[in-house]
Amino acid sequence: MNPPHDGFARRPLPAGLVTALGELLGDRFTTSQAVRDHHGRDESAFPPAPPDAVAFPESTAEVAEIVRRCAAHGVPMIPFGAGTSLEGHVLAVHGGVAIDLARMNRVLAVHPDDLDATVEAGVTRLALNAALRDSGLFFPIDPGADATLGGMAATRASGTNAVRYGTMRENVLALTVVLASGEVVRTGTRARKSAAGYDLTRLFVGSEGTLGIITELTVRLHPQPEALAAAVCRFPSVRAAVETVIRTIQLGIPVARCELLDAATIGAINRHAKLALAEAATVFFEFHGSPAAVKEQAETVQAVAADAGGAGFEWATTPEARTRLWTARHQAYFACLGLRPNCRVVSTDVCVPISRLADCIAATEEDVAATRARIVARSPAAGLPVTLLGHIGDGNFHLGINVDTANPVEVEEAERLNERLVARAIAMGGTSTGEHGIGLGKLDFLEAEHGSAVAVMRALKTALDPQGLLNPGKVLRAT
Amino acid sequence: MNPPHDGFARRPLPAGLVTALGELLGDRFTTSQAVRDHHGRDESAFPPAPPDAVAFPESTAEVAEIVRRCAAHGVPMIPFGAGTSLEGHVLAVHGGVAIDLARMNRVLAVHPDDLDATVEAGVTRLALNAALRDSGLFFPIDPGADATLGGMAATRASGTNAVRYGTMRENVLALTVVLASGEVVRTGTRARKSAAGYDLTRLFVGSEGTLGIITELTVRLHPQPEALAAAVCRFPSVRAAVETVIRTIQLGIPVARCELLDAATIGAINRHAKLALAEAATVFFEFHGSPAAVKEQAETVQAVAADAGGAGFEWATTPEARTRLWTARHQAYFACLGLRPNCRVVSTDVCVPISRLADCIAATEEDVAATRARIVARSPAAGLPVTLLGHIGDGNFHLGINVDTANPVEVEEAERLNERLVARAIAMGGTSTGEHGIGLGKLDFLEAEHGSAVAVMRALKTALDPQGLLNPGKVLRAT
Repeated sequence: MNPPHDGFARRPLPAGLVTALGELLGDRFTTSQAVRDHHGRDESAFPPAPPDAVAFPESTAEVAEIVRRCAAHGVPMIPFGAGTSLEGHVLAVHGGVAIDLARMNRVLAVHPDDLDATVEAGVTRLALNAALRDSGLFFPIDPGADATLGGMAATRASGTNAVRYGTMRENVLALTVVLASGEVVRTGTRARKSAAGYDLTRLFVGSEGTLGIITELTVRLHPQPEALAAAVCRFPSVRAAVETVIRTIQLGIPVARCELLDAATIGAINRHAKLALAEAATVFFEFHGSPAAVKEQAETVQAVAADAGGAGFEWATTPEARTRLWTARHQAYFACLGLRPNCRVVSTDVCVPISRLADCIAATEEDVAATRARIVARSPAAGLPVTLLGHIGDGNFHLGINVDTANPVEVEEAERLNERLVARAIAMGGTSTGEHGIGLGKLDFLEAEHGSAVAVMRALKTALDPQGLLNPGKVLRAT
Repeated sequence: MNPPHDGFARRPLPAGLVTALGELLGDRFTTSQAVRDHHGRDESAFPPAPPDAVAFPESTAEVAEIVRRCAAHGVPMIPFGAGTSLEGHVLAVHGGVAIDLARMNRVLAVHPDDLDATVEAGVTRLALNAALRDSGLFFPIDPGADATLGGMAATRASGTNAVRYGTMRENVLALTVVLASGEVVRTGTRARKSAAGYDLTRLFVGSEGTLGIITELTVRLHPQPEALAAAVCRFPSVRAAVETVIRTIQLGIPVARCELLDAATIGAINRHAKLALAEAATVFFEFHGSPAAVKEQAETVQAVAADAGGAGFEWATTPEARTRLWTARHQAYFACLGLRPNCRVVSTDVCVPISRLADCIAATEEDVAATRARIVARSPAAGLPVTLLGHIGDGNFHLGINVDTANPVEVEEAERLNERLVARAIAMGGTSTGEHGIGLGKLDFLEAEHGSAVAVMRALKTALDPQGLLNPGKVLRAT
């Protein structure tokens, strides 16, 4: 898993910058190897690429000052949240200064009547929900990891609740952003909607730190549902599960979550989380609403599922049982990681129109089987455990490809498998990445997916970051 | 109502361009005065500004060719849909060629399983819904006028259904756009969500034809609700109505529409549509869902309304009664226009956080009364009938200021009234325009609202339209 090489030559950090940032931040600026190492990796399989230094600002003004000084010295800057990105977003492949926003972790305002909150970028989603506990509101976006909201906005994250509540795209009202010049802009207001000018909020959401550094966010909140119900249903096939979800959505049932897990994933989480689910294609459902609405939704979905051969609707009625279920779901990544020792998990992320989802998964399962056979033929000691799970209501699914990075045959075959998967998804009208982002890992796929529109993206990058110092090499290849 | 003057000197259309476009389009290119006049006005109170010629392309390729030829001659281009914009968006204040997309009116594809459709930009919202009639699906965005979808995307339109279904921002999946160079790009896929690169779709949505010309759209569709119920409820005050809606939304009730109409508006539509509603602050509600869900929502809202003094929940249960109600609501603009002969209606468009809506309306009502008193003092024959209606669930409301454009006192006072209203909304954390856009009419307000972020917008404009030929003078002042 080598990050794409773009011929960049790293140069040491200018001494003047080190002095200036040390004076500005004191011991909140460091070149310590341990801290740099910590900021040089994420949850991807890419080899680490530590920055030359790490800054820990505590305010937007400090971020702006750091940016001005780095810009004056022509030094790259990499915003850093929780380090849970999956495509090498935070790797300092061009060197430079990591700007760690973890200390900007204040919830600045909660407006219960308006269903919004303004937070600093380093607040994590669990911290925000803890702060909201007594408000009757919650923040739904849930990428699994306890990522920072700044990082989630930067990668346009989503997760299990997106089918009902949308992604970061729909749930960010406004941002405070430090531009490449060090200037600070506010991209919107607390108004629910606006037609005032270009949509800068949506431009920065998903820009992966390459157009500006997000330091504050105003996000939408949602009422905690009066009632919740979660259920597990197993299906005779992935296709039957997908048909059930298509029908559910066509009926206008506002299902809150519907997560597909294949038999291998169920097996892995059974072992990891000490569950005893039947090892079959399974959908985890969750319904939110009034008690009567939840009951009606659940009954309707149960009937639809039964039509498709779904069986064993098992209800998790207590909060504890529900939490146990979703915790197991969220630990699927680690469950996959636990399938073999000393391996890494490559997580794919295509998203297709839901009518093509069953076809896409079927073709991919065949491809996985053929790939595994090829690997074993070339390298008999190897394997290639693959788990599959999907945010099925959105048409988004992930393979967890368990790769022995010491085995070049596995590494190469896993890369080719992902490339074919992306090509398949794009051919079906889909995208290379539903929620993980481009980072370093999908630069070629961006071209394949967007064609000439990549030139538009490049024009925007040049307009907003003419020196190319903001997280260089991510989203677009550095020039 | 003079559009802001930016010192532009109009020059005649180059003969070479007239010849070239005539050869390309035949009689679908014209310099006829009648056709130019038709394309020089919208529903705003601005004086007409006809283009020098009008082109009627029938394909994206033709639009691209028109753009290349205009660009080669340095001639401005103004995309034109249904001409129903409210801030002078289509006025050719710099001259040039209007590109009328009305003939690009094909529904290219409907994907019922995926709940999406791809259409040409000239398809109107009613035409799309007619095409969807038997599909079980509908397109919810409803700005009142039967606008084209291209125009609705360009102005980030919304309307009465936005509280539940979102605006054009949330309901456009992808666009085909002709850039200023004549190059054609596709901004997304049919995937429900994507984290692949910068969000070009949202950049072009709301860009008012100043960054590119939208020629095709892929939009989200929604299941036609199994059951609908509409009801009219009158309140002792606007504040009581707003409190009811805040509480409704906090309870998580997915109300489909909730429209506030003040007593003056009710009076105007009573006369215009031959209704006999009580002339009080009134909310029109609509609920969508299963029969049981609609019943439960309606009962809950009725109880919440009763707590706030709401009375006379009158149900429109038949499709005819419902249509009559919403038609009356949509004709509020014309009802207001009918309050005095030979007048124009200036429609304001602020949107504030809903917790500030009652305060904003109360202060505005006081301002209207004071303004009217001042006008009568200066010009005893004058008046200034003002109606108020609001997409109250979004915090968005409109004054319909009925202005005698022949009376400079009224014109000036109406402009000042709107300026104060916008300043009030921005001070409350809101926006100058919830759904009408900037056009010519709100250029100063954009600066007031976005401050230094306007420079970012200008950088984007320069990057994508370096010659400044796409709808010049709109959104941003021409330089």
